[in-house]
Amino acid sequence: MVSKTYTGKAYHIECTGQALETAQKHTQDQDITLFGSCFCPFVQRVWTSFEYLQIPYKYYEVDPYKKPKDLLEVSPKGLVPGLKLNNFNPPTALNESTVILEYILDLAASSNGRSLLPPSTNPYARALVRLQSDHVNRSLVPAFYRYLQAQDEEAQINTGKEFHESIEKLVELLERTEREVVQTGGASGQGEKQALAIGLGLWVDGNEDLGLVDVMAGPWLYRAKSVLTYYRGFELPHGKKFETWLNKLFNHPDFKKTCSTEDLYVDSYERYAFNRPNTSQVANAVNSGRGLP
Amino acid sequence: MVSKTYTGKAYHIECTGQALETAQKHTQDQDITLFGSCFCPFVQRVWTSFEYLQIPYKYYEVDPYKKPKDLLEVSPKGLVPGLKLNNFNPPTALNESTVILEYILDLAASSNGRSLLPPSTNPYARALVRLQSDHVNRSLVPAFYRYLQAQDEEAQINTGKEFHESIEKLVELLERTEREVVQTGGASGQGEKQALAIGLGLWVDGNEDLGLVDVMAGPWLYRAKSVLTYYRGFELPHGKKFETWLNKLFNHPDFKKTCSTEDLYVDSYERYAFNRPNTSQVANAVNSGRGLP
Repeated sequence: MVSKTYTGKAYHIECTGQALETAQKHTQDQDITLFGSCFCPFVQRVWTSFEYLQIPYKYYEVDPYKKPKDLLEVSPKGLVPGLKLNNFNPPTALNESTVILEYILDLAASSNGRSLLPPSTNPYARALVRLQSDHVNRSLVPAFYRYLQAQDEEAQINTGKEFHESIEKLVELLERTEREVVQTGGASGQGEKQALAIGLGLWVDGNEDLGLVDVMAGPWLYRAKSVLTYYRGFELPHGKKFETWLNKLFNHPDFKKTCSTEDLYVDSYERYAFNRPNTSQVANAVNSGRGLP
Repeated sequence: MVSKTYTGKAYHIECTGQALETAQKHTQDQDITLFGSCFCPFVQRVWTSFEYLQIPYKYYEVDPYKKPKDLLEVSPKGLVPGLKLNNFNPPTALNESTVILEYILDLAASSNGRSLLPPSTNPYARALVRLQSDHVNRSLVPAFYRYLQAQDEEAQINTGKEFHESIEKLVELLERTEREVVQTGGASGQGEKQALAIGLGLWVDGNEDLGLVDVMAGPWLYRAKSVLTYYRGFELPHGKKFETWLNKLFNHPDFKKTCSTEDLYVDSYERYAFNRPNTSQVANAVNSGRGLP
């Protein structure tokens, strides 16, 4: 176990590193304004997808704990990410990271054809990717917060084990997808295998393009590496294929563009790691045994 | 409050009424086998969608509490619904009701063009429908089980209030969708309004076609009417528009086709209503404050 002392660090209210550069490149008005917060993994999902799908947007940093009025107008619970859609009259809004993701996937499909999913001609591959995403949302993400907020040693051991198992279960789904779609999908030659692998993301050998599971899980795995290592001494699973995947993901240009420096995450998650009262709506939901807001 | 005595009723293992007729019409081998259980609302979601989307399927009733080997092969947690895809070599499988729904929506899009969503030319309408579905999954469904499993009077009052509020919140989202897509969507005449309303489901005036939110929420609202009324004296919200919606939904041919008689639900949910130990994985998750499996 790692033993740290609570220092009362403040969460950050401005991106650092590459994310700051990206934010500064997106200050012009656009049809879509992305309301984001620098440390929020739900925002990073959407932000990475905007970059990868090449959809124009303005990035607008908000302090989600202060709940400014303009945030509440786009997201009734005051949660980020939120989108303001300025080309509607009157302007309108969307919230919930998974809903926003589907929305910008639809936008990309009808504009530039870029996607994070296998093509619609391969519904089974799409379903397996959605199964991965469902697992991330309903198992991996809550397990991350339970582990980070666990205070006594026994709870940390148990929740750490659960988080580890949830990652392993994701790996099983990734392996299954590669096996059932690419290896035994009827492909006979290299060219066909590459076609079958479209939209399956960076896990698959030879794929260099992001897939839905990469943007769905990436932000929490990235925070596991910094925040959980720092506060809990967590080690991500070993294994060549898993490490290759993480390496590809963490170094993908569109993922890196939305990453701040490690200290930003360590500072911003201190309140979670010591389970301070009213850290966030997410933290409160985990403490009370309710689903994430 | 309603006071009932536990009678040790057994859950049903065969459909009754219209659902039985439908099951009996779908005993022939098909590319897809739907593993279902007669009382399960997650199954009814998928089953209604198969009917509405006119996708051929074989219905196969399983006892999810016995977890037969063939169920575990299509659904690792032994949960229904599961799909066995017989046209793959070797046969393969899918589980999770929302993943299955997206899969059969993809199948319909590439075969007969039927859908439960607004067309892809209207991404904003699709996003609002997904926002409704997200609310159903993450708020309305868990609130249903918390209320049904609550034992002492105070808990029943509080959880009943939460369930009621969750329905009201869904109504707000339905109203918002109709207002933003149909009323202020730029339509000037009746013909255009009808085009804008495609895929928004039965809530919208004049729509007679099922939409995603109808199949997502319908099974729990139907069980609220029978099971929660019987065990908790619950009253669904009043109001002309809400009652019109429920009436359209409960009488839609493709929804009715998957409904058993009321006694089947009352009997099958007695164990939930008295929160008997190990009623189900769903019941255990609610009792332990975890997300639904």
